[in-house]
Amino acid sequence: MNKKIIFDVMNSDNGEICAIQAANKFAKEFPNYTLVLVGNQETINNNIDKKLKNLEVVNSSKVVKKATANIRELLREESSMLTSFEELNKGADAILSSGDSGAFTIISSLKIKRLDGIERPAFMPIIPSANPEKNFLLLDAGANVEIKSTNIVEWAELANVVFKNLFSKNDFVKVGILNIGTENYKGISAIKEANELIISAKNLDYEYLGFVEPNNVINGELDVVLADGYAGNIFLKTYESATKSMASIFKKAFMKNLKTKIGALLLRKELNKIKTRYDYRNIGGAFIIGLEKIIVKAHGSSDEVAFYGALNQIRFGLENNLIDKIKEKLNNLKKEDE
Amino acid sequence: MNKKIIFDVMNSDNGEICAIQAANKFAKEFPNYTLVLVGNQETINNNIDKKLKNLEVVNSSKVVKKATANIRELLREESSMLTSFEELNKGADAILSSGDSGAFTIISSLKIKRLDGIERPAFMPIIPSANPEKNFLLLDAGANVEIKSTNIVEWAELANVVFKNLFSKNDFVKVGILNIGTENYKGISAIKEANELIISAKNLDYEYLGFVEPNNVINGELDVVLADGYAGNIFLKTYESATKSMASIFKKAFMKNLKTKIGALLLRKELNKIKTRYDYRNIGGAFIIGLEKIIVKAHGSSDEVAFYGALNQIRFGLENNLIDKIKEKLNNLKKEDE
Repeated sequence: MNKKIIFDVMNSDNGEICAIQAANKFAKEFPNYTLVLVGNQETINNNIDKKLKNLEVVNSSKVVKKATANIRELLREESSMLTSFEELNKGADAILSSGDSGAFTIISSLKIKRLDGIERPAFMPIIPSANPEKNFLLLDAGANVEIKSTNIVEWAELANVVFKNLFSKNDFVKVGILNIGTENYKGISAIKEANELIISAKNLDYEYLGFVEPNNVINGELDVVLADGYAGNIFLKTYESATKSMASIFKKAFMKNLKTKIGALLLRKELNKIKTRYDYRNIGGAFIIGLEKIIVKAHGSSDEVAFYGALNQIRFGLENNLIDKIKEKLNNLKKEDE
Repeated sequence: MNKKIIFDVMNSDNGEICAIQAANKFAKEFPNYTLVLVGNQETINNNIDKKLKNLEVVNSSKVVKKATANIRELLREESSMLTSFEELNKGADAILSSGDSGAFTIISSLKIKRLDGIERPAFMPIIPSANPEKNFLLLDAGANVEIKSTNIVEWAELANVVFKNLFSKNDFVKVGILNIGTENYKGISAIKEANELIISAKNLDYEYLGFVEPNNVINGELDVVLADGYAGNIFLKTYESATKSMASIFKKAFMKNLKTKIGALLLRKELNKIKTRYDYRNIGGAFIIGLEKIIVKAHGSSDEVAFYGALNQIRFGLENNLIDKIKEKLNNLKKEDE
């Protein structure tokens, strides 16, 4: 089985070289994968492992602009991200980029075909919970600010398949809708309707927990958290920022004086575990889900480790035939409806 | 200046006695304040400081039901919270309760007159930022799930006056609207319209920072954070839960083994500072703002310290003539409009 991944190497805060090095490592390890590196040809050629036959180069060195209200502009102006999606459409299987989330979401929605049965693609990051054994999927985390109830219902099906395959879960995936309270009458109307639609659905092959609050999510009680993109994005950014700021408050306390530094030294092993736990590089990239390809957005500050991890996340999806399984699921739902 | 505060003592997770003890302490210290304690008469009489002439008792010992879709029920069934609002309407100045936020918000909106120029009251907690010197006001934090742009504009005016008086701020209060991005085109329509309304307003007497993201808020860059009640509530609960869970992850690491316990001992002083910083008892209760009285909701798990703090928060508002100052401000705005 030969697979092709398009890799936009231009957008990392850490520069292109760490992306190229991750590509070298991955290509060497998995010779049945071809990586197409999109970026500045000269930089790529200077850093690429020339012995490897499964690395290709496409020259396109402009960094994409941040998404603006004028989204058509994103499609007119050349950028490594846009070129990458064009390469993807030539028959490749997946794409990886660390560029602007907004631009990435918009370009992918416009360039890649939607799956039959899915009205809107969603931005779906993998997020660590407070339970060290437990990551969860959040969708939508910001691609769709205003939504319809049916979007949520469709996203539940997508995420169910992804979670099952990605985390090899055998029993029912636990799914809930993020809300400002657990009672059925709470929240905005699209969310309330979605809740009713799921409750009344037959043959649900995931466990539906109804409305959940941020503490349920953070405690790791769920596998899949559904949300409109507005609430989902506020949740995601608040969670990230609160976690980071709390960690830095503790760090400051540890560095206060000699006594606290000795204290921190005794705690070093445990503190490193916490650090490792919340390191985005160990979590994986965010999927744009609902389209006919595997589309992964790596963190903007990805380094070699992060990119290598994201490439493996894609490989895992491809080896599990993720898109085919989603298609099959959507097909079955369609048949049930008829 | 004699003032009267209605104190619903029935709803604390810690029982009534800590509420009554806080009342004893406050009444003794501030003889020009009368406290009307609403709750189980027997329990109150058994615990009240009989020497004090400025403590009154009203018997009403049923705990209010949680807010449900059927809000009229809240107004029909007797509860200490409902009785408290009825007492407030007999000419008292302020109310304090630690009961269910939903019920408290609904009953206050229905029982207490709205200020002229304010369409919807808002739930406005005081929140600690990551900057130890800096608390901020968030409104609306959950009373109004779906809003109009003008609500946001009105809330900005209210919070500006409150922040100035509560935190004795002399220069311009920094105000922003919570959103999923800082660009003007982002977010839901009510928020976008509110942003434009504030930008185009003349004679603004606060500093408007435009759209802000959760990290700006958590870092303590703002005094007042405006939001629709949906995003505001998700932000509030996510921030609380993330902060709490991160603290408990560190705590677990500290208790891991003898070595880490010794480490934690060396850090004790600094760790206590963090604990004190995020202790809700040092922050204060949440205001229901936009009504003609000072209305404060204490934390559900309030103890004597927390209740005593909340009573002082009310005293501070009364001594600063908060409601009169808000009325004056709204009056001036009305004149400008004409």
